[in-house]
Amino acid sequence: MTKTAATHPILPDATIVDGRVRAVIDAVLPNVDGGRFAVKRVVGESMAVTAHCFTDGHDVLRVMLRWHMEEQAEVHEVPMKPLGNDVWIAEFTPLAVGRYLYSVTAWVDPFESWRHDMSRRVDDDDIRIASQVGAIEIAAAAARAPCADGETLARWAKALVTAAAEPATDAKTVKALALDNAMAELAERYPDRKHAAYSAPQLPLVADRARARFSSWYELFPRSASPEQWRHGTFKDVQARLPAIAAMGFNVLYFPPIHPIGRVQRKGKNNALLADPDDVGSPWAIGAAEGGHKSILPALGTAQEFRQLLERAADFGLEIALDIAFQCAPDHPYVKTHPSWFRWRPDRTVQYAENPPKKYQDIYPFNFESDDWRGLWAELKSVFDHWILEGVKIFRVDNPHTKAFPFWEWAIGEIKREHPDVLFLAEAFTRPKVMHRLAKLGFSQSYTYFTWRNSKQELTEYFTELSSGPRIDYFRPNIWPNTPDILHEQLQSGEPAMFMARLVLAATLAASYGIYGPAYELREHLPKSPGSEEYLNSEKYQLRNWNYDDPDSLAPFITRINQIRRDNPALHADHDLRFLPIDNDQILAYAKTSKDGNNVVVMVVNLDPHNVQSGTVQLDPESIGVDASHPFQMHDLLSNQRFLWKGQHHYIRLDPHSVPAHVFVVRRRMRDERDFDYYL
Amino acid sequence: MTKTAATHPILPDATIVDGRVRAVIDAVLPNVDGGRFAVKRVVGESMAVTAHCFTDGHDVLRVMLRWHMEEQAEVHEVPMKPLGNDVWIAEFTPLAVGRYLYSVTAWVDPFESWRHDMSRRVDDDDIRIASQVGAIEIAAAAARAPCADGETLARWAKALVTAAAEPATDAKTVKALALDNAMAELAERYPDRKHAAYSAPQLPLVADRARARFSSWYELFPRSASPEQWRHGTFKDVQARLPAIAAMGFNVLYFPPIHPIGRVQRKGKNNALLADPDDVGSPWAIGAAEGGHKSILPALGTAQEFRQLLERAADFGLEIALDIAFQCAPDHPYVKTHPSWFRWRPDRTVQYAENPPKKYQDIYPFNFESDDWRGLWAELKSVFDHWILEGVKIFRVDNPHTKAFPFWEWAIGEIKREHPDVLFLAEAFTRPKVMHRLAKLGFSQSYTYFTWRNSKQELTEYFTELSSGPRIDYFRPNIWPNTPDILHEQLQSGEPAMFMARLVLAATLAASYGIYGPAYELREHLPKSPGSEEYLNSEKYQLRNWNYDDPDSLAPFITRINQIRRDNPALHADHDLRFLPIDNDQILAYAKTSKDGNNVVVMVVNLDPHNVQSGTVQLDPESIGVDASHPFQMHDLLSNQRFLWKGQHHYIRLDPHSVPAHVFVVRRRMRDERDFDYYL
Repeated sequence: MTKTAATHPILPDATIVDGRVRAVIDAVLPNVDGGRFAVKRVVGESMAVTAHCFTDGHDVLRVMLRWHMEEQAEVHEVPMKPLGNDVWIAEFTPLAVGRYLYSVTAWVDPFESWRHDMSRRVDDDDIRIASQVGAIEIAAAAARAPCADGETLARWAKALVTAAAEPATDAKTVKALALDNAMAELAERYPDRKHAAYSAPQLPLVADRARARFSSWYELFPRSASPEQWRHGTFKDVQARLPAIAAMGFNVLYFPPIHPIGRVQRKGKNNALLADPDDVGSPWAIGAAEGGHKSILPALGTAQEFRQLLERAADFGLEIALDIAFQCAPDHPYVKTHPSWFRWRPDRTVQYAENPPKKYQDIYPFNFESDDWRGLWAELKSVFDHWILEGVKIFRVDNPHTKAFPFWEWAIGEIKREHPDVLFLAEAFTRPKVMHRLAKLGFSQSYTYFTWRNSKQELTEYFTELSSGPRIDYFRPNIWPNTPDILHEQLQSGEPAMFMARLVLAATLAASYGIYGPAYELREHLPKSPGSEEYLNSEKYQLRNWNYDDPDSLAPFITRINQIRRDNPALHADHDLRFLPIDNDQILAYAKTSKDGNNVVVMVVNLDPHNVQSGTVQLDPESIGVDASHPFQMHDLLSNQRFLWKGQHHYIRLDPHSVPAHVFVVRRRMRDERDFDYYL
Repeated sequence: MTKTAATHPILPDATIVDGRVRAVIDAVLPNVDGGRFAVKRVVGESMAVTAHCFTDGHDVLRVMLRWHMEEQAEVHEVPMKPLGNDVWIAEFTPLAVGRYLYSVTAWVDPFESWRHDMSRRVDDDDIRIASQVGAIEIAAAAARAPCADGETLARWAKALVTAAAEPATDAKTVKALALDNAMAELAERYPDRKHAAYSAPQLPLVADRARARFSSWYELFPRSASPEQWRHGTFKDVQARLPAIAAMGFNVLYFPPIHPIGRVQRKGKNNALLADPDDVGSPWAIGAAEGGHKSILPALGTAQEFRQLLERAADFGLEIALDIAFQCAPDHPYVKTHPSWFRWRPDRTVQYAENPPKKYQDIYPFNFESDDWRGLWAELKSVFDHWILEGVKIFRVDNPHTKAFPFWEWAIGEIKREHPDVLFLAEAFTRPKVMHRLAKLGFSQSYTYFTWRNSKQELTEYFTELSSGPRIDYFRPNIWPNTPDILHEQLQSGEPAMFMARLVLAATLAASYGIYGPAYELREHLPKSPGSEEYLNSEKYQLRNWNYDDPDSLAPFITRINQIRRDNPALHADHDLRFLPIDNDQILAYAKTSKDGNNVVVMVVNLDPHNVQSGTVQLDPESIGVDASHPFQMHDLLSNQRFLWKGQHHYIRLDPHSVPAHVFVVRRRMRDERDFDYYL
């Protein structure tokens, strides 16, 4: 890990350029694959860096954390402090979005080493001789210092030599002069760093805006936003829905693709192989005579209306996320203008998507092995550029794992270099290592297996994995209880308790979550067929009309949950999730704490939608900063009830027929000046 | 981790040189700090390598492990097999000592992908068209293949096209021709690898000779080897001791420094500040008028006698290890010939070693910040070179952590390039991260904290750490119950049970161990002063005369232990150590298994030297390859008793007044042709 400042090899072994570099830097953490990929943080989030640093023998080391924005020359340095066991720590806080580089430098400090030894010297002669040695170091520091400081240090060096040489001055006095704190502080400002070691390579960090870490997504099909039954919805219809969606507390509004939809091989309702003439087709079958990935389906509105919608949404604190699906309907203009981007069969037809024996004749995948891959890459990137220019800053990328991985690293890197505030959500429901690779390549957030993690054990294992280990530095989960593709069996009976429980889990197990609505709040739950995870009459293939005024809508519950998320910083990050023991396999209990320790929330969720479940949860008061001998208040933010807890064991009872969960915030006991007790 | 074969950047991002490289290699294991340091193995020990490999979509990947000796051009390739979850594995076995490099290559294989899809096709038209597609791939393979194979493949391609185009040939027949196994095997030999990914960097491996991993050390002071009381021992005296030492079963005989000993500031008996005229001084105060690190103390013998000793030792299977201590007595010739290698004080004296307020005036450390560091490094390396030329191949390096770390990496690297069979043992009793760094830099073996790990919990924690995790790839422990510097308090009462128990632990907890003898077998146990870990009348400062004929000598016990070590391959490696539960805190139980699973040894040690201890050890028969329903024989190799065990729980009773340990080998029940039961 260590290399030296100079870069010309002096010895046969090219890694050694100056043998006098004695400081060792053995591990700089965090890093993703040794710096091959960037660590992720958000603006304003402190970044603690540790390193193993030491040298031979007993000399004193000084260690600095170095960091800078990648495209700025100015390097900042923060002194690192020893934690013991040769581990050093410092932190810095990225204050602007963008790419940063950090590294560590360490050097054996002759002045500090001398001072440390001097402080332990007892022998008079030693003190006198060591003072002369120190005076040489001080004079060297003086030579490195600017005028005034240099003169002060030079005077000190001279005084020390004089005192040491004067038998009339007793050794104690000489030692005191040698150890002068103010002078030492001055000398430390001008250290001799010519033999400093530098960790290599510099490690990359991407600082995103806060929404990369904490976001609440709402997905809807604009074409179903019409209040009039079976009229094709428009951007204007969506505009009318904005107040309601914002009122529910979401901050990202995500649309499936809004582009012209292919007519050739168009699928009918419920994915029928043959479409009726009035069938609207799947938004993911992109491209037709009207245009492709940079065009808008005319039935939704104009580019002007889309821009207007973005602005109105912003007024409500809602950001619009677009779906980018890099695939083409057979009548996409690319097929004619860039035939080399597709794979052609010997019968002069384009190879449609297939996974034999399954065939998807309505979808033409791009051929990433095209000889014109440069042209293809440039065009695909320009799709993002187009929508960024229109004002879109968040993209949900459809099936990124079926496109060449190097493309994503290049495209996201290039786009974020120009627009560091753009965010990408990877919709890859695939094998773990593939999902992790996409996150490393630059995706800001990632879909997860949450939908298929249902039991207490599954949830505990999966979220322990997601919130710990090195992966937390690059993989940000975004949790969805449903999507237009996934109606999990658990939801298919439609019990409100199950919809509520899964919502609480999604919204509190991770800092980012989303729902596909209005299907979720209106508890859409019929599958296309028994055993299928597809929705019956799915919006993917037809218009739907939703009854927003349904008195059983979960909208009020969702509103409450999102309010709780906003109010509690503990729910804004993924780093501190702890599962709490509870003696009932149908109850999941867990706690999250904000980084500053001031906000502690405790969730207790009944996973059984049918039966009352009860049990005794263990919560160590000390672990949440509460004195074990004092009571503390648990304020259930869902029911607004307050409970006084004391000690470790607490009885819980959850009835799925009312609310299947508690979301407690811990209120610590405070004592005010007049000696009244109250809870914060 | 992935880079591509070509090296010219085509796109702005220099890491992407050909966007058509779709295979991803995400993690190649093992590696030490991403390849910054070498993984260690011994010759003949297989090296399993895993990698995470995958590509976008469903195409078929082929993955190869590549390896070669660093200085040989020929690269070997081994096909890697999928273990599931995108992990691939292959192994290779280094058959010669030296440095190797290994890496992984992976590519999306168009022929294999086509074949995989073809095997699942059911539609007649699909089969015919896909056959045409496949014929193109096969023809391409034919073009890559040499004459005969090329012609065979070309014929196959042609036949496939013809069959597919012929309506009279039914699709099933076409499919069968397309999936012809023999032809496929031939085509697979000529894959299209132009878009292969290569893991980078290539990872280094050092293959040592077997003794790097499995060694039994015996340390003695040659000057005390004289059979006549108070005569200075010689190499000839040591020669006379060789049969006895070899008979005890050791294979490394290690000497403290054998160089001329300084007279200036020489220390007296028991480290007295003033020496008597006849005091012999410390062998670590190296250098006097007669010479320095390349010379031999005349009282020990001549260079010729030393070479003779090496040869005689080799006849007994004993290899001699020398102590290399890079420090000088004040009268070492270097002080005059190379004053710039030392730190000078303003009073024109050399700065002696000190750790204020402690002073070591008899020792001058080298100044690794010398302007002539190149000259210093070269000379220090030449000390090793000198002794290697004399025939020494193992060095025990004194306090390497007080010399500049880059020196070790360079020196060991250079020496092993020329003499790959040379081994280095790091005598660094210091902080964990420093010890680990030295191991990474190239030391073949490392001293450990064993001496100070005494309780069941301490031993369990420490040896679990030493035998697991990534550290096992570079840190090889060498375990010493005593050294001339360390007489642990536990040994100071001299109980035979304690000496025996610590010996069993040292010899079986790790594959390499050593004792400082004859102090150990003769149970030398008096400390210099109460609370001290120094020996009274230590050989470090005076001659000693040992009574090898002491009837209480532990030599027979040591002989037995070393015999057991030799006979049981499970004790030749550190990778598989498992502690077994036993319900007594004074008894430590653990098992080791050989890599092939055929040799299982179980140790049970009473840590209490005073009292009989008993308990029930848990040993799952399945974990040692024994059917849970069958009895198995536990053969105690110390007592030669055999016990029949069955099931999980086994009662153990150990009396410190006889033998405080069992070293069992598991004898599995076999049934021979005549239906007799016997145990292997």
